[in-house]
This record gives sequence, C-alpha cells and structure tokens, in this order.
Amino acid sequence: MSSDLKFYKSKQLAIVGCPFSAGQPKGGVDKGPIHLVSAGLVNQLEALGWNVHFDGHHQFEDISIESDPPIGLLKNPRVVSRTCEALSGVVSEHAQNGRLPVTLGGDHSLAMGTISGTLKHFPEACVIWVDAHADINTTDTTDTGNIHGMPVSFLMGIGSKVPEFDWLKPVLAANKLVYIGLRDVDDGEKKILRENKIKAFSMHEVDKYGISKVVELALDHVNPNRDLPIHLSLDVDALDPSVTPSTGTPVRGGLTFREGHYVCEAIYETGLMIGLDIMEVNPSVSDTASVTQTVAVGCSLTRAALGETLL
Amino acid sequence: MSSDLKFYKSKQLAIVGCPFSAGQPKGGVDKGPIHLVSAGLVNQLEALGWNVHFDGHHQFEDISIESDPPIGLLKNPRVVSRTCEALSGVVSEHAQNGRLPVTLGGDHSLAMGTISGTLKHFPEACVIWVDAHADINTTDTTDTGNIHGMPVSFLMGIGSKVPEFDWLKPVLAANKLVYIGLRDVDDGEKKILRENKIKAFSMHEVDKYGISKVVELALDHVNPNRDLPIHLSLDVDALDPSVTPSTGTPVRGGLTFREGHYVCEAIYETGLMIGLDIMEVNPSVSDTASVTQTVAVGCSLTRAALGETLL
Amino acid sequence: MSSDLKFYKSKQLAIVGCPFSAGQPKGGVDKGPIHLVSAGLVNQLEALGWNVHFDGHHQFEDISIESDPPIGLLKNPRVVSRTCEALSGVVSEHAQNGRLPVTLGGDHSLAMGTISGTLKHFPEACVIWVDAHADINTTDTTDTGNIHGMPVSFLMGIGSKVPEFDWLKPVLAANKLVYIGLRDVDDGEKKILRENKIKAFSMHEVDKYGISKVVELALDHVNPNRDLPIHLSLDVDALDPSVTPSTGTPVRGGLTFREGHYVCEAIYETGLMIGLDIMEVNPSVSDTASVTQTVAVGCSLTRAALGETLL
Ligand SMILES: [Mn+2]
Ligand SMILES: [Mn+2]
Ligand SMILES: [Mn+2]
Ligand SMILES: [Mn+2]
Ligand SMILES: [Mn+2]
Ligand SMILES: [Mn+2]
Repeated sequence: MSSDLKFYKSKQLAIVGCPFSAGQPKGGVDKGPIHLVSAGLVNQLEALGWNVHFDGHHQFEDISIESDPPIGLLKNPRVVSRTCEALSGVVSEHAQNGRLPVTLGGDHSLAMGTISGTLKHFPEACVIWVDAHADINTTDTTDTGNIHGMPVSFLMGIGSKVPEFDWLKPVLAANKLVYIGLRDVDDGEKKILRENKIKAFSMHEVDKYGISKVVELALDHVNPNRDLPIHLSLDVDALDPSVTPSTGTPVRGGLTFREGHYVCEAIYETGLMIGLDIMEVNPSVSDTASVTQTVAVGCSLTRAALGETLL
Repeated sequence: MSSDLKFYKSKQLAIVGCPFSAGQPKGGVDKGPIHLVSAGLVNQLEALGWNVHFDGHHQFEDISIESDPPIGLLKNPRVVSRTCEALSGVVSEHAQNGRLPVTLGGDHSLAMGTISGTLKHFPEACVIWVDAHADINTTDTTDTGNIHGMPVSFLMGIGSKVPEFDWLKPVLAANKLVYIGLRDVDDGEKKILRENKIKAFSMHEVDKYGISKVVELALDHVNPNRDLPIHLSLDVDALDPSVTPSTGTPVRGGLTFREGHYVCEAIYETGLMIGLDIMEVNPSVSDTASVTQTVAVGCSLTRAALGETLL
Repeated sequence: MSSDLKFYKSKQLAIVGCPFSAGQPKGGVDKGPIHLVSAGLVNQLEALGWNVHFDGHHQFEDISIESDPPIGLLKNPRVVSRTCEALSGVVSEHAQNGRLPVTLGGDHSLAMGTISGTLKHFPEACVIWVDAHADINTTDTTDTGNIHGMPVSFLMGIGSKVPEFDWLKPVLAANKLVYIGLRDVDDGEKKILRENKIKAFSMHEVDKYGISKVVELALDHVNPNRDLPIHLSLDVDALDPSVTPSTGTPVRGGLTFREGHYVCEAIYETGLMIGLDIMEVNPSVSDTASVTQTVAVGCSLTRAALGETLL
C-alpha cells in the first residue's frame, strides 16, 4: 500500500516507545508508552495500512537518577541529556531508513531527542507544537528545574548553555516553530515568545478563529507553500482535562476531543508529516476510567495523525 | 394558529409512537417512545401551537420474533419488514391528511417505514439523516445482520434483494440524501457512499466549517432552491454520548447539545419539513440520570425541530 | 503601571462586594462575593497590575426582609430598592474617583444599582448583558415577583411604576443594550424584546456565528465606532451548568468555559470598560466540588475581563 505521505512513500513507521519520566517530578508518565501499546496501537496502525516496526520499548538511561545531582536548578540533567541524545540517534536513523518515527512518551523533554533527530535528516522541516504549555523556559527562566518545560529553548539554543547538553546544537529557528493550544504560559516564556517573534495560537485564537482556521494560519506561518516537512509534537495536555485527564499538568479550557483530532487529521492531510510525538500520557494520574479514556484518546489521536478518517 | 410549515398549513401533527427493537439486538429501545411521551412531549408540542394527534403507541408486529429465523445474516427480517410496511401506511396516511408525521422510535430500521411513507405523498422530498452512523450497509456488506444498520440501502434499492422486502421500492435517489454527524462508518459503507456519490458531513466537516455552515451546505446539496419537502431522520446517537448517553451504539466525538438543537432549529426554519423521526432513545442503557437526560434531550430536540426557539 | 482602559488610566479598581439575595428566593447567593474574595480574587487582580481598593463587603440593608411585605407580586421591594439605591451611590462614587467598579453579587437585581451608578458618571455608556436570562420582566409580566428577573425593565423605565423605586430614573435606552447567551426567556420578555427592538444574541446565534463574531456583532450594535464606555454585566448562569453549576437558575446549553472567557477577554480588549458585574454565584447550590469550580471560574472570568490573557 502506498502512503499519502510525501516523505515516506513506502508507508513504513517505527514506534519508538520511551518509558521516561526524568524531565518532570511525577511518577507514572514512564508507563505511558506501555499503556498505549498495550491498548493495541500497533494493530490499529497496521489496520490503517502501515508497516509498523516495533521491537519493544527503549531503555535509554544508562545512569541512575540517584547519581545525577542538579546543575543549577536543572533536575536530572545528565539522565535527560543522555536519553535525548540516544533518542535523537534512534529517531534520526528511522527517518533516514524511510520509517516515520512515532515517539510515545514519556515526558515532553524527549522532544529534544525526537526533533533533533528528524531535523538531522530533514533540516528544512518545521515544527507544530500542540500543547497547553510553551515548554520554552530556559535554564535562566525556569522556576522548577523540570526539563520537560524547556525542550524548545534547548532546541532553539536560547538561554545560558549547560555543557552537559553540548551534543544538542541549535537546530530550530524561531520562524520554523508554531504553537497551537497554549493556555498556561509563564511570564518568562511570554517574554521569550515575544522577543523571538514566535507564532503561537492560544485557546483565545482557537475561540476567535475556530480550529480549522487556526490550523490553516499555523501552516501559513511555518509552511506557506505547503512543501516543507512537518514534525508534529503533541502533548496530550493540549486537550481539555475532561478529554485527557491522565496527564501530569492538566489545564482547563483546552481543545475538545474533536478539535484535538481535527488538528491531527489536518496535519496528516498535508502529506508532509515526517515525525510524530505523542507525549505526557500518565497512567498514574486519576482513576481507572480516566486512564482508560486518556490512553484510548492517545491512540485515536495517533491514528488520526496517521491517516484515519471518519469517511 | 397557522403554521410556519409550507406543507402543513393547518399546524397539525401526528405522534407515531413505535415501541420496536427488532432491528437491533439490545432490549429497551422499544421503550423509547413511551418514555418520550411520558415526559410530556404531547403537551410540550401543543404549547408550541400544534394540534397534536396521538392515540397511543402502535403495536405493529403481527408475528413473533421466535417464528422469524434469519434470512442470510438478516435478523428478524419478517418482523422488521412487516412493521415497516405497516408504519409506511400509517405515516403516509397522516401526511396525506395534513398531519406532519412525527415518529418516535424504536430503532432506526423504522425509517424504511417513515421515509417510504412520506415519500409516497411527497415523492420529490429530500432526506437529511443526522446520525453517528450511515445505516447504509446492504444485505451483502452487513457483518451483524442488524437491520437498523441498513435502512438507507433498502430505501435506495442497493445491494442484493430480499423477497421479504418486496413491498419497499427504491424511492430514495442518491442525490436526495445528505448525512450530518457521521463518525463511525464501516469500510463497506464508505465504499457505498463514494460509489453512489452520496454527500456526507462527518464530524470532521462540522469541526472544519462549523455546524451552521454544514447545515447550509447540506441544504445546498439536496435542496438548492429551498423549495423541496424535507424529511429529517434523527438518530439521537448523532449527539455526543455526554449529551444522549442512553442509546444503543454511542460513539464519542458527536454533536454537542447546542449543535444538535441548532440542526433541528435550522431545518424547521426552512419551513419545508414534511416528516420527522426521533430514533434510538434506549431507556435501558446507562443509569437513571442518563436516561432522564437522554429523554429530556429527545423531547427538546423534537421541540426544536417543530418550532421552539430561544427568542 | 498604566492601564489599557481608556477611562481608568491610573489602573485603579474597587471591589464592591454585595452579600445580597433579596432579589430571588434561594439562600446562599449572598455568600457569593465572600467566596470570590476568599478564593484570592484581590491578589489575583493585583497580580494583573491593578491597584485594588477593597475594604470589606458592604452591608446595605437598613431594613429587614420581615418588615418588607410584597408590593403587588414584587417580593422584598423595599430591601431591593434601598440596597440598589445605596449601591448606585457607591458605584457612582468609585467611577467618579477613577476606580473601576467591580461589583460581586449577590443576585442580579443589584444591576439596578451598578448600572445606574456607572451611567450617572458615563451617561453615554452602553451595556452588554451576558446571561441565560433577559432579566427584563416588568412589574406587569413577572410571574414570580423575584426582582432579579426584572432589573433591565427598571433601568429602561418600562412597565408600571412602583413608587418605592422612584429614585431610579430610566437611564438605559433600548439601543444601548445588547444581550449575549440568552436561552431561557419568558414569553412576556420575548414580546418586550421585540417591541423595544432590543438586540439579543441567544445561544442559537452563538452556534450560528461563533462567539467571536457574536461579540463583534454585539459591539457593532451598541458601540459601532468603538468609542463609548461599556458596562459589562455578567450572570455566571450564562455559562453552561457543567462549567458554573453553583448558581440559582442554571439552564442547559450555555456558553462553554472558553466562550465565557472569550467574551470577557474581547470586551477588555476594547479598552472601553467602565463597570463590571459578576453575579449569581451561589455557594449553597450543588456539592463542594461544584462550588469550588464555580468560584474558580467566577474569579477567572473576572480576571479575563480585567486584562488577563493567555499570551
Ligand atoms: Mn503541556
Ligand atoms: Mn509539553
Ligand atoms: Mn446511529
Ligand atoms: Mn441510525
Ligand atoms: Mn441568569
Ligand atoms: Mn441575570
């Protein structure tokens, strides 16, 4: 079966399961990818015609959190750095071998690995970051030291450098990035967004223009001729907590079930996707029904981003 | 009081209560019309100025399900066929006598009766089918044999013929039908929709265009000059399960409370309605609060389709 | 810090807490302002850069409800009248002294006080009334005698006069008023709206045009050149009961969390606000979680109306 995706004509994808939580303090998010796969995601994607490569979840950490003291405020810096560096290699290799990398987090610090990985093979690619949060605090602006709130600044090379992350070069230009769904952005982050002229569609704009127009405007910004590769990095907390309750930092007033799926469907329709992240499913948050629901939505968002349509 | 409806100037309607469930396997949907009427629907419609004819729920079945073995995969074919044939006559007679037929299901297989009934008197009418499902499996494509998933194919005359349904002639042309709300369509059904060029607005289009534009586009398709009679067949599972939980085959991501009512209000506003079905309320599904809510929404959708406005 | 508001350049506001419930029969709504303030509203507004004046909740009533027999159907007419008269003076004084009056109800009858107060200082101001209800019954059309369903008719001077309210002159012209969110309007009220050509955007219009367009159309009507002062009177029952359950007269099918906030954000963005009412939070309605949620939403709506943005 041939693919609708311009850059992966042979319709192969690789599931990169990342049971990883060191970018933030809550246990459980490392179980996210395991739940997504257990819910049948591989078969579901095969039913969409994909040739799915999946040979078990990765175990990247070669050092323990115990031997990883903070650097400044940054928590678990070595574990996060080495995991992302390894992930970057894995993702890059999949892309190079014609397998669309679909990374299941785990916390969103992993995007340092996934995006640097896909950009290595597709340096002209743009990034669509769908999230309640901007995840763009720097080592200077962070209050918490949780690195899952910082991957974008690391990818862009803004803020004071941490030698531990020397492997990660600035690969993402401000005009190659667009946000959808923001609604909980720190003051320091707002300043960064303004100063770097980064385009962001918050929920205010979703209300104002509607989700369909927002996706169009977002694409107009980073991909005006609809010819550049697209990396879609989706934090499930972009959706409203009534839809995806089991996530570490839920925020009210998010994307509806349908808006979330619409974004995925519309990005897939461009035919330009070259990387996909499904992040921050945390099966330890909330009750069993909420977990089941969040995992099911995580799977259906993934399917929507990979070609499932209603008709 | 004179009516806003062009084809029923004397503002009379007939409630056709159909306690019927043989088109699908779940008990309880036969209690739908009883609950809707008990909730005060007759008085509510009279308060809108309608002269309401209602002389008790119909008991169409003259043969028992026990003596009705499957024909191929089709379950309860004789019971469904004879019920729909009788219903067709009842509905047709009401239409002919100037009484808008408002049929309360019961399962959606009944639409073979209602639509063939109204089309007998208004052969130029179009059909707006509001549903999570396309209900257009044929005797050849059905997996389940549940006839409530097939009424549209029978009305159009597609698929292998079953002699038992000889009374039902192909009365519905592909260009006279439009769907709103689809989100769970079988592969075989997708093929039928494509091959017959049947217009369908799934939830993706509702997200993309908004419900107001979708209703307009739907009318543009089947009723470009806004002069043809309209039969509105509404499956309450078109709405999201958070709105109408008590129904046999709920599917996530449906119409909101307001979108559902908007569709009904907008169709009424055309002044062209000639038949209305309110289908698939199943008071045996879910808890008491859900049943009460679903029945209340069933009543308010009916009122909205029959002229109730907010201002 | 200078303000974005044209008429309050020094960025001062006054919280006018009104623990008052005599305009309707349910106890508890008098506790609304206390809960809003206890939830930290003052600090939240200071964090937005406002210089907040708040010296405790007002105790306006100088007569007891026991000594206040009905006048016609009107319940507690003297208590309501004198409270509103006193409130009018307080609000007017704040406006005159350059402090934006932010009145926390209490029931919506208080708007007779707030709006007459702001209009005294800004006679050219228009009113945007966001509510499930029109609150425009007159002494002649009211069924219940609850004055919180009548403040608009008193402000406009329509209906039979009650000498007790002689202090309140007709200050609000029909073309200076616009409604958003209506969905439970009495027949008598519908007639009043029509006869006085009062512009109203019900939930049907919100569905039809989207909330962004509705706010624009509402402003076009009452403030075509975007130069007139705006009094925003917000009844939290404008939002859906799933968002603000703890209120005395909830009605299904209301504004979503985001639509409610969008309205507030968009009105603030005009830079023209001169008065704000947050009404009908009733902490005695529904369970603890619902109360906490309603109070939190009450606070966030207030913040949104006073300059909080997502980005
Ligand atoms: Mn997030
Ligand atoms: Mn994130
Ligand atoms: Mn259905
Ligand atoms: Mn159906
Ligand atoms: Mn109200
Ligand atoms: Mn009110």
